[in-house]
Amino acid sequence: MTIESGRGSTMGTEKPVIAVLGIGQMGLVSAAILAAGDRAGQGASQSRPGTARPSVVLWAHNEEEAGELSQTRQSARLPGFVLPDEVRVEVANNAMLAEATLIVSAVPVQYTRSVWQRLRKHIRADAGVISVAKGIENETLLRPTQLIADVLKDDPDRAPRRMGVLSGPTIAAELARCLPATMIAASDDPGFAETIQRIFSTSWLRIYTNQDMLGVELAGATKNVIGIAAGVLDGLQAGYNAKSALLARGLAEIARLGASMGAAPETFFGIAGVGDLATTCFSPEGRNRSCGEALGRGEKLEAFLARTPSVVEGVATTRSVMDLAQRYKVDMPITAAVHAVLFNGLDPLEGIGRLMARELKGERVG
Amino acid sequence: MTIESGRGSTMGTEKPVIAVLGIGQMGLVSAAILAAGDRAGQGASQSRPGTARPSVVLWAHNEEEAGELSQTRQSARLPGFVLPDEVRVEVANNAMLAEATLIVSAVPVQYTRSVWQRLRKHIRADAGVISVAKGIENETLLRPTQLIADVLKDDPDRAPRRMGVLSGPTIAAELARCLPATMIAASDDPGFAETIQRIFSTSWLRIYTNQDMLGVELAGATKNVIGIAAGVLDGLQAGYNAKSALLARGLAEIARLGASMGAAPETFFGIAGVGDLATTCFSPEGRNRSCGEALGRGEKLEAFLARTPSVVEGVATTRSVMDLAQRYKVDMPITAAVHAVLFNGLDPLEGIGRLMARELKGERVG
Repeated sequence: MTIESGRGSTMGTEKPVIAVLGIGQMGLVSAAILAAGDRAGQGASQSRPGTARPSVVLWAHNEEEAGELSQTRQSARLPGFVLPDEVRVEVANNAMLAEATLIVSAVPVQYTRSVWQRLRKHIRADAGVISVAKGIENETLLRPTQLIADVLKDDPDRAPRRMGVLSGPTIAAELARCLPATMIAASDDPGFAETIQRIFSTSWLRIYTNQDMLGVELAGATKNVIGIAAGVLDGLQAGYNAKSALLARGLAEIARLGASMGAAPETFFGIAGVGDLATTCFSPEGRNRSCGEALGRGEKLEAFLARTPSVVEGVATTRSVMDLAQRYKVDMPITAAVHAVLFNGLDPLEGIGRLMARELKGERVG
Repeated sequence: MTIESGRGSTMGTEKPVIAVLGIGQMGLVSAAILAAGDRAGQGASQSRPGTARPSVVLWAHNEEEAGELSQTRQSARLPGFVLPDEVRVEVANNAMLAEATLIVSAVPVQYTRSVWQRLRKHIRADAGVISVAKGIENETLLRPTQLIADVLKDDPDRAPRRMGVLSGPTIAAELARCLPATMIAASDDPGFAETIQRIFSTSWLRIYTNQDMLGVELAGATKNVIGIAAGVLDGLQAGYNAKSALLARGLAEIARLGASMGAAPETFFGIAGVGDLATTCFSPEGRNRSCGEALGRGEKLEAFLARTPSVVEGVATTRSVMDLAQRYKVDMPITAAVHAVLFNGLDPLEGIGRLMARELKGERVG
């Protein structure tokens, strides 16, 4: 609990330690924001009243990549980004996790289980967990915080571990340049949501709290599926009208799924929902949109993935979301079309045609 | 009622007549869609079962512009557009309105009253009205259908006139190319909403019905204010994260206003709400976004309006929405910032700064 003002046992001379797992784009920018804090003009003491600046450790397991990051403070994964000197890069040093009272999980969802299984025995029982990953694990259909809890198997007789998520429209290259952005800090524990809000807030990054962790994680995962569909429209040069219709109808179907699973519909109409969806559908930088665009132009999925160095979360997520739609009996025509294009060889143009040719009807949202 | 299959008194040899008022972008594309119908491959009989193809008249009052449109079938207002031969262009011929059983009002909102006042005495008592304009009249704070009703002053002892709106994400240049799009046909009279749906539907234009005419008109008007703010961000090169946050927070505040006025929140989260908002914020073609972009780059409002041939609806609408926010006591910080930038000389960068620096809090949507 050392990150909270005035309450931690190590307050004073010792600094709280935050470990960031993963050196993908979100790992890099998360570490930079936490360590260097507000580099946009205002002092950290102003934007984070009462909070001691934490010590930030970036954990990596790829020795080659992490070694280069440690030496050059740069990464081919995020051109133009410079890792602040304050961030310590640890290569495959799992023992260092014993110091961390907060752990930010920035590992692609389909690798999260194996990473946490490897680290599990080093993780403190009182360490809070913040997930910034966006996806649903295949087969288990668990959200990131659920699958981390599944791995940790905490003692049910202890106080529950603080778990939260940080999500929103965050093109990493823009965060790296300190361009204005917003995110949602969500936790079933309101106090922990406020902790996340406080440690990540800067003058250029505005963070709102939300208690609907389920909705925020679902929105972050499902928007990548719609983002692939948006890319398909781009590949077909379908235009803004079509893409905006897709955004609205896609939002309706992911909000329907969320409601069926017990999430708050408002979450989907907020920053972590429609906000993140808008960036995913319209920013040319998004990997999911780019993947869809390649498919829309006629490229094969395997060919696109082979030439893309980063994980395209939406591809695996599409399988999981289709499974959830079936389990909760929710009609998700756009997700079904993306699934058919990705895995069953449906021609993208025919997929669009099917969506447009459905029976004329009244609008139903959520 | 001659537009409805098998029910009109003039069915048979005579065709129903639809008059489209206005030769701006939406007037042009509305007339083309109604007259030529489905030019995307499928026959009209297939996409509009049982509906007689109507006779479409395009009403204009600017003799010079209408004369050129009539002769060349083209317009400087919509490069690349060709008006189908079936559409008759009538220049200042108000008497022809006596034939029309449906009237599409495609006049900028701040001119709608004067146009309808001039035409009032020619309009049939049984003519249905479809508004495609997006705005709120200054001073009266009336929506387009309200202000048309205010001008018509129909006999309260007769059956109420059929009134509806057609709205959605519709960049006119894309409609002119028959690119896929969706719209909402809204009317308090569900049968009339279905009539609008039927006469405008084609294989590339998918129309949903909605009974929340208030919400659809409010969403169409207010999104232009947020579109100006999106342009300001573009002018400041703030990035996609910022613009998507604006979209989400803007959506929240216009949905709040709508709910306070009695509209259905879902309307704002659908095609006529967030769909239209997305196109307005992200398409480079939008006039409201372009206006904001000019302001963000430092241009004065007067200079931008002087060099822009078309009406920028959002400028006048911002005044009306601010008045509505005060009347209904709704907090609309983005609208207030746009109002201050447009009319009170607030520096755009300072406006953004104020929005970002508001007290950290929980997310509240709708």
